Amino acid sequence: MDERLKKQLDFLLEIDKSKEVIRQTYLSDGSRKENDAEHSWHLAIMAILLSEYANEDIDVLKTVSMVLIHDLVEIDAGDTYAYDVEGNKTKKEREIRAADRIFKILPKDQADKLRALWEEFERGDTPESRFAAALDKTQPVILTDNQGGKSWMEHGVKKSQISKRTEYVKEGSKELGEYINEAIKRNVEKGLLKDE
Amino acid sequence: MDERLKKQLDFLLEIDKSKEVIRQTYLSDGSRKENDAEHSWHLAIMAILLSEYANEDIDVLKTVSMVLIHDLVEIDAGDTYAYDVEGNKTKKEREIRAADRIFKILPKDQADKLRALWEEFERGDTPESRFAAALDKTQPVILTDNQGGKSWMEHGVKKSQISKRTEYVKEGSKELGEYINEAIKRNVEKGLLKDE
Repeated sequence: MDERLKKQLDFLLEIDKSKEVIRQTYLSDGSRKENDAEHSWHLAIMAILLSEYANEDIDVLKTVSMVLIHDLVEIDAGDTYAYDVEGNKTKKEREIRAADRIFKILPKDQADKLRALWEEFERGDTPESRFAAALDKTQPVILTDNQGGKSWMEHGVKKSQISKRTEYVKEGSKELGEYINEAIKRNVEKGLLKDE
Repeated sequence: MDERLKKQLDFLLEIDKSKEVIRQTYLSDGSRKENDAEHSWHLAIMAILLSEYANEDIDVLKTVSMVLIHDLVEIDAGDTYAYDVEGNKTKKEREIRAADRIFKILPKDQADKLRALWEEFERGDTPESRFAAALDKTQPVILTDNQGGKSWMEHGVKKSQISKRTEYVKEGSKELGEYINEAIKRNVEKGLLKDE
């Protein structure tokens, strides 16, 4: 087989492991936690359907590509829960080592392209990465809001924590920022998010 | 909340159920069967990385969108195993009923767009739908090839069945067609696919 296609198939096999990286967010019916592949699929469809709410003009294919690959580094680095203070201290370093290994399985041109896309997502300094970040923070709220705050309750998440984590959603999308604020307010009233 | 955004969020919640539609293909490590959301995520990344192997010029965003949503109808219709003769007799009808319900949750313009995209995938009469179909048939072979033919063995799949099912992969991509033929040959030699 052609060397280039072989590298691409090796990469496709490697990223199959994303289906076993478990996040803290439950499916909308609360039956189990979702994994990175499922989460990324959901974000990709959101990028297509909700692009009209991006504050700035975005390249939709670039945004979709970004959200599809944004969590691949967790194959090595694991999912670090948003409110895990200790884990977040070493997250960056673990994820950079993972990116060094995983993207390099691809032919060099594609490895460089995906690495650059992941770094852009991490920096969050372009219209696409700002909108992708907004989707990434909104999707777990949609699920958790629907199933009665299960992961928030388990971790005793406070209103101030989720507000801080989602405050820059509005930088990517004014409308999604407003949805998040409504959802937080509603869940505090229900007692599913702790107000202090 | 704005009526349009509400419909879009309702749709995003509805399609969360794709994460619970179980396919017959095992993950590459054989640990469990994959679901539709994971499968579609994998296809979307394939569409981006392997577009250079499409026989015809394709619109990559259109192809990615198509593979992301191509299995949503299975939320109602269920996954029909490729080699399930009885199930395949009623598949079309069950899937059309599902499409009637699911896409209509969206605002009309987006419902029409996604429905048309799904119908195009089903017809397979455009460069994008031919390439999407090639990916859809190639991805389970990549996984099953890697974990020792687990789902083929379970169902006693014959070489002639898989050859027939994958024969039109080459209409979407000559290179992927060749990969499939090599994989079939290799697995027949290993005794993982029954030759008759």
